[in-house]
Amino acid sequence: MAAAPSSPIITLTTDFGTRDSYVAEMKGVLLYYCPEARLVDITHEIPPYDIVAGSLALERAMCSFPPKTIHLAVVDPGVGGPRKLIVCTLGKQTVVCPDNGLITWAWLRRGPGKAFELTWRPASASATFHGRDIMAPVAGMLASGKLLSTLTSPSADPVLLDLAPDDSGAGRVLHIDHFGNAVTNVPGASVGKRIVRIRQQLIGTVRGTYSDVAPGNLLALIGSGGLLEIAVREGSAAVKLNLKVGDAVQLRSARKPPRRV
Amino acid sequence: MAAAPSSPIITLTTDFGTRDSYVAEMKGVLLYYCPEARLVDITHEIPPYDIVAGSLALERAMCSFPPKTIHLAVVDPGVGGPRKLIVCTLGKQTVVCPDNGLITWAWLRRGPGKAFELTWRPASASATFHGRDIMAPVAGMLASGKLLSTLTSPSADPVLLDLAPDDSGAGRVLHIDHFGNAVTNVPGASVGKRIVRIRQQLIGTVRGTYSDVAPGNLLALIGSGGLLEIAVREGSAAVKLNLKVGDAVQLRSARKPPRRV
Amino acid sequence: MAAAPSSPIITLTTDFGTRDSYVAEMKGVLLYYCPEARLVDITHEIPPYDIVAGSLALERAMCSFPPKTIHLAVVDPGVGGPRKLIVCTLGKQTVVCPDNGLITWAWLRRGPGKAFELTWRPASASATFHGRDIMAPVAGMLASGKLLSTLTSPSADPVLLDLAPDDSGAGRVLHIDHFGNAVTNVPGASVGKRIVRIRQQLIGTVRGTYSDVAPGNLLALIGSGGLLEIAVREGSAAVKLNLKVGDAVQLRSARKPPRRV
Repeated sequence: MAAAPSSPIITLTTDFGTRDSYVAEMKGVLLYYCPEARLVDITHEIPPYDIVAGSLALERAMCSFPPKTIHLAVVDPGVGGPRKLIVCTLGKQTVVCPDNGLITWAWLRRGPGKAFELTWRPASASATFHGRDIMAPVAGMLASGKLLSTLTSPSADPVLLDLAPDDSGAGRVLHIDHFGNAVTNVPGASVGKRIVRIRQQLIGTVRGTYSDVAPGNLLALIGSGGLLEIAVREGSAAVKLNLKVGDAVQLRSARKPPRRV
Repeated sequence: MAAAPSSPIITLTTDFGTRDSYVAEMKGVLLYYCPEARLVDITHEIPPYDIVAGSLALERAMCSFPPKTIHLAVVDPGVGGPRKLIVCTLGKQTVVCPDNGLITWAWLRRGPGKAFELTWRPASASATFHGRDIMAPVAGMLASGKLLSTLTSPSADPVLLDLAPDDSGAGRVLHIDHFGNAVTNVPGASVGKRIVRIRQQLIGTVRGTYSDVAPGNLLALIGSGGLLEIAVREGSAAVKLNLKVGDAVQLRSARKPPRRV
Repeated sequence: MAAAPSSPIITLTTDFGTRDSYVAEMKGVLLYYCPEARLVDITHEIPPYDIVAGSLALERAMCSFPPKTIHLAVVDPGVGGPRKLIVCTLGKQTVVCPDNGLITWAWLRRGPGKAFELTWRPASASATFHGRDIMAPVAGMLASGKLLSTLTSPSADPVLLDLAPDDSGAGRVLHIDHFGNAVTNVPGASVGKRIVRIRQQLIGTVRGTYSDVAPGNLLALIGSGGLLEIAVREGSAAVKLNLKVGDAVQLRSARKPPRRV
């Protein structure tokens, strides 16, 4: 994506839900610091305090938005404690988030980038809502053209969670989506012709699309984010197999069964 | 509505939910192709794969937005299969959607319009997310002023579902809204002084507004979309009568009961 | 916040939910009357007809947005009945809402302001959706620079609900947020060193932030909106204590227990 948009874009990813005013409070601050910003919600339904789920959503946001986009991501169970705040640059995009692992999936899939510790602080801040009081002002200032170097100091490496699949290709479910698809941490390109199993259930080799099986049937496919998914056509794999985040996924080479003597 | 807005408006109607990044991925694409677009969510809570519900929401969107608005509607259980994609013009508005009946209610209520088969394809597309990979780019290009004729070929009539009430005026529930109102497919203008029944429950003639009955009481009224609705004042008709989509609605002329001898 | 944004901002607070097209219908009208308006959702998940919850969200919106922001708030169980519609100015912001108490919390915390009765009416309006047919046009016209005096007449005092804590400092839970925090009507500044109880549960004195207790533990703190809250670190106080809106909160001065003889 080559063309830069006419107005700065800021995306928001949080675990705040949408029934309180918390997201809007951040937007009010963003528009105060950058009145011309385009604000786009990624999601606010990250399960409360679920840094892994937030990390996946943030990576998807980075993949989908043009260069210069600024991503504000707040899943922050440690607010008010000793955790740092960081600004990361990855490709031509920028992320503002707590340094608690939230950057992991973007860093693994699109990085490594550069991480900076956020040193700017307002005259006063609440103890419980640094998304509104520290991170949103910084995202707004960056969108307005403020130099990163005036708000941060160079940081050591950011906190990274263990989300990568192991070398054997065994993986696990990282996310159950709205349709009940189980999204794994296994890159589609690594699957090849191998047979997919999840828990004790044989799924088979990867299919091209949902329509390759009958409605209601299970299949493995490479999802739109490039990861191995377990799905049911016009149904929910999560419901059908009672899948949960963390369930193990195995890949085995197809071969004839051992001959019985 | 005569005045055209200064920036193109694109609305989004999907069954994607709001807890994943899917909607935002489409928005990133829309803003890439049309950076100045105004993006407005109609709803993303169409029940998964529910084309009828999507069709109703899309018609409401068309009714509420100014001329030149572009509507991107994606309820697409057949993604990756043989279903076509279409662009429809209705009045001075444009819809981009799969050709699976999603256009039905707008076509019946605001059409007929013109339908074109979407022939533009990107260099590469996922097999499972044509909303992001094909339809969003097209909506963005149209918003940017690209000519429809360069992206489509004339199409036969679009797929239409059977959603109209029958000639006798009998209808059915098409949608249960957030308040538990049961929205039917019966145009308000056709009801007149007739008595409304739903399932075996007598509701009575149409009232002007909720305040015409006491709180907690049932009533029939013509909803803000011009359709017959069954409601409970400050309560939920769906809960009170256990209503479901598809429930039959009868209209009978009021008359004296037969005299007993 | 001194700088005015380049485009008018209109916020929306309703009990409409997000699965129907109702919110979008209001946005279509707002963009018709003020094409350059920036639309920001506060929340649409106010529980149906819950004026108190709507009142809290609206006050938060007013606190977070810059001067000149226009707030459209629609929790309107009396639609079509005799309740009036009002426009209130508080500080340099403007609210358009029904006169049913929805303005209460903003009026108590940020007012008193000025209230005007909305006298403008469209050529035709539905009986059930004045948010779209009357209030949204007015919000859009005000955002476009139309003079308030041409749309309203001076009003008596607006309807106000009894939401303030009593003089002894006893309060009650006004809202359970997404994280299960119980937000009370007790201003943080009034709590001091007193010991907080909720129902029969001793919570203790106010802490600075979540990290002051171990994960899973209860605490009292002053939330980001300046009110006393009961919370659980990385958990839900509402679930742990089965808290509900309306639960009583007591404040008692800390003192030594009576000495036993």
